[in-house]
Amino acid sequence: MANQEEARQAAGFQGSVAVSVTDRAVRWGVCEIVLHGGPAGGNPFTEVALQAEFTLEERSILALGFYDGEGVYRIRFMPDREGRWTFRTSSNEPALHGIEGDFECTAAGGNHGPVRVRNTFHFAYEDGTAYLPIGTTCYAWTHQGDELEEQTLATLKASSFNKIRMCVFPKSYSYNTNEPVYYPYEGSLEKGWDYSRFNPAFFRHLEERIADLGELGIEADLILFHPYDRWGFADMGKEADDRYLRYIVARLSAYRHIWWSLANEYDFMRTKTLADWERFAHIVTSYDPYGHLISNHNGLAFYDFNQPWVTHCSIQRVDAYKTSENTDEWRQRWNKPVVIDECAYEGNVEHGWGNITGEEMVRRFWEGAVRGGYVGHGETYLHPEDKIWWAKGGQLYGTSPERIAFLRCVLEEGPAGGLNPLPSEWDLPRAGIEDEYYLYYFGFNRPSFRQFTMNPDVRYKVELLDTWNMTVERLAGSYQGTFRIDLPGRTYMAVRMTRLPGDKDLEDE
Amino acid sequence: MANQEEARQAAGFQGSVAVSVTDRAVRWGVCEIVLHGGPAGGNPFTEVALQAEFTLEERSILALGFYDGEGVYRIRFMPDREGRWTFRTSSNEPALHGIEGDFECTAAGGNHGPVRVRNTFHFAYEDGTAYLPIGTTCYAWTHQGDELEEQTLATLKASSFNKIRMCVFPKSYSYNTNEPVYYPYEGSLEKGWDYSRFNPAFFRHLEERIADLGELGIEADLILFHPYDRWGFADMGKEADDRYLRYIVARLSAYRHIWWSLANEYDFMRTKTLADWERFAHIVTSYDPYGHLISNHNGLAFYDFNQPWVTHCSIQRVDAYKTSENTDEWRQRWNKPVVIDECAYEGNVEHGWGNITGEEMVRRFWEGAVRGGYVGHGETYLHPEDKIWWAKGGQLYGTSPERIAFLRCVLEEGPAGGLNPLPSEWDLPRAGIEDEYYLYYFGFNRPSFRQFTMNPDVRYKVELLDTWNMTVERLAGSYQGTFRIDLPGRTYMAVRMTRLPGDKDLEDE
Repeated sequence: MANQEEARQAAGFQGSVAVSVTDRAVRWGVCEIVLHGGPAGGNPFTEVALQAEFTLEERSILALGFYDGEGVYRIRFMPDREGRWTFRTSSNEPALHGIEGDFECTAAGGNHGPVRVRNTFHFAYEDGTAYLPIGTTCYAWTHQGDELEEQTLATLKASSFNKIRMCVFPKSYSYNTNEPVYYPYEGSLEKGWDYSRFNPAFFRHLEERIADLGELGIEADLILFHPYDRWGFADMGKEADDRYLRYIVARLSAYRHIWWSLANEYDFMRTKTLADWERFAHIVTSYDPYGHLISNHNGLAFYDFNQPWVTHCSIQRVDAYKTSENTDEWRQRWNKPVVIDECAYEGNVEHGWGNITGEEMVRRFWEGAVRGGYVGHGETYLHPEDKIWWAKGGQLYGTSPERIAFLRCVLEEGPAGGLNPLPSEWDLPRAGIEDEYYLYYFGFNRPSFRQFTMNPDVRYKVELLDTWNMTVERLAGSYQGTFRIDLPGRTYMAVRMTRLPGDKDLEDE
Repeated sequence: MANQEEARQAAGFQGSVAVSVTDRAVRWGVCEIVLHGGPAGGNPFTEVALQAEFTLEERSILALGFYDGEGVYRIRFMPDREGRWTFRTSSNEPALHGIEGDFECTAAGGNHGPVRVRNTFHFAYEDGTAYLPIGTTCYAWTHQGDELEEQTLATLKASSFNKIRMCVFPKSYSYNTNEPVYYPYEGSLEKGWDYSRFNPAFFRHLEERIADLGELGIEADLILFHPYDRWGFADMGKEADDRYLRYIVARLSAYRHIWWSLANEYDFMRTKTLADWERFAHIVTSYDPYGHLISNHNGLAFYDFNQPWVTHCSIQRVDAYKTSENTDEWRQRWNKPVVIDECAYEGNVEHGWGNITGEEMVRRFWEGAVRGGYVGHGETYLHPEDKIWWAKGGQLYGTSPERIAFLRCVLEEGPAGGLNPLPSEWDLPRAGIEDEYYLYYFGFNRPSFRQFTMNPDVRYKVELLDTWNMTVERLAGSYQGTFRIDLPGRTYMAVRMTRLPGDKDLEDE
């Protein structure tokens, strides 16, 4: 269970079923109703339908329950308001039907709620706090055993990343040859899987890791399907796919920091059609009562982000050379946040998706940022034991993460509503708010100076940012009108201009 | 006159005109007929029409003459066959009409003739020798006075460049504020120019510099119009434009190493229309009897290279990030050689067109080369006296030229018919000839190894090329079938594979 919940109501019986309820849940925390002693015979995964309606005053939310093995059923709920919520279950199983109770939802106590889209292209937590996604990728990190998984968590804790792309299913691919600790279904690779019987241990483990991420303030961008599979989970058939989605949504949607990614590289999953993806989206959005962020990540062809259920564009670069430089075009095309969560990875593996330099990675982050988008990280340095971050987690070896942290600081110091591109000269993209704040990024260009022509009525503080060496140099005095800024003739420089108070206040500066 | 011509026939009189003719011209050299004592009154530039028909056996070529001041008329001719050529002038001026003579054309003596398109996408001299354009840009180098111009020639001589983009007219632009030594017309900036009266000294100087380039084996890609003008030469009006073109074609087309570039950035010349450019092309190609290479260089919008008179695509990058990576698309689009003669310049000036690194310049050269195109160089490092190579020539300071020379060596060692792209994996462009020769370029990707699957019946010599450090490392032994090549995990690497003789001959290797 989510760690932030503490007290539990002692089990009380309603009929033959022992009911325990989170006694006191925080706002946007997980409230869980546990029903012990429900039916365990037959196939509870397929035969028992269970849900509960949670009510606070005029507000009423329906949450799916799920079978967790050994006669235990759970219903999870994320209350989004403080107060005394009541609930009532309904089920085709009489013993589980009509169970009632209540619990107290108290103040969030430090959490900010789920992340939502704000200002069309940006994100904020539900409490209004800005959220700037600084993502990384560890596809199969929850399948590596506790030692490596805990190292991953420690690495994440020390990093600036606040979102992680991760798969539910284990991964079979280059450098990903180990078996997972848990399998999602009963059965085995040799004997086959029973797709009608989930393995609760698998999901409990996943939930623990997701809760661990929550503790670190890291959003879990959870990939529901992916093509890199040797077990069969990429090709279970329609009925099993749909059942799996309902199950995982029932288990996980009460976690405020879940994002749904229908797939990694949906278009590489040859047995699934566009109709399948649309159906998957329908299932997830129908059963997730909280409207978590949801998208579908491409291999070669972007998903149709115009679909109304898509909350943001989840993008893999479609060109080996030009990636985040397209961010503003994509913003215009889809009018949704642009999250380039795969722009290639810093590393030295064989293929072009995984062997760019730290410099190129950081440049892509900045090119995206000054065009109002969000680029994601991943790392693929060869490792003697194949402990490669992008798939397994572990340690980071690259040069980009600390520079990405520097960018995160710059973004956090920027406009509260998010960084939006401004009309720019062809060779110098800029973002900000006219007459208030400008962030210019020079990328691989390295002029020895630049002329700027600004609103002559506004005075600016000007800072030189060396995005690679992570320095901020405030230039003496203030700048106004047309002026020249000397630059060091190095690559990866940025210039930040911030409006200074009017003339009268200048002496205080 | 072109330096390669030596002996001249002593002047003999035909009527009132003293005629001198190059006594012995080499094949593809300049044969010149000089007519002294022609009319000097009125305006010989506009009033006198002069041409000569040159004949060798069944072959007959008409060449325009031109007035060179002080009663001197010249007709230049580039004979393309050995033998005794005869000529006969025709003119509306009786004294210049019907003058006859002959001269001997001997073997080329080391020159290879003009450059032609060969194999659709490549070039060769007329004698069949491959020509691989390795171009640079010094727009206004002939307007800088002898000292700097001679330094430019010395720099070129020491370089690997074999083509130079250069303007006829002087240039007015940032860092280009000096007046030229010569003006093309009678008059002055203050009093205005008489566009009907050329200044022969201007053109003689230009010709001397073009001849100097010829001595160095450097093709002169001569820009006939350009927008960076404060004298009026960019906007002379239709009649003057057309007269200028006829005059310069008459003067220069006998130089075998001339290429015609109708403009630098034609689309930035707002007073000229597409119809003008087509008319210009018609004038140049009509009066140039030798069919020199001709194109039109863009600012923002490519010229329509499908026009039948266009011999090759002369391209300025139209995207700040992606340039020569588009070469193969452009080849397919126009089915002509792709010469990206402006991919941005190595330097540190203010603007993005002139502040890329040497690394990026060299990368662009290679990206173009492995896609079957030709990228051009330029350099724009700030200089205390504004002696910036891209406009004025002088010295080179950058890091790219020696690496470009390295590339030239690699290309010269490559397929004689030119390097053509081969079907490639998305992250590793390659060029060559199937089963014979492959050149792979990794660009900014830096894998630590790569797997190759080749024709199992062919053995290859494999070499690692570090295109930045300019090293070639032959890997021991030979390679066949599927094999792995270890790479240093650095950027800018290439791999070259060359077919080895069959098994029987292998021991000789």
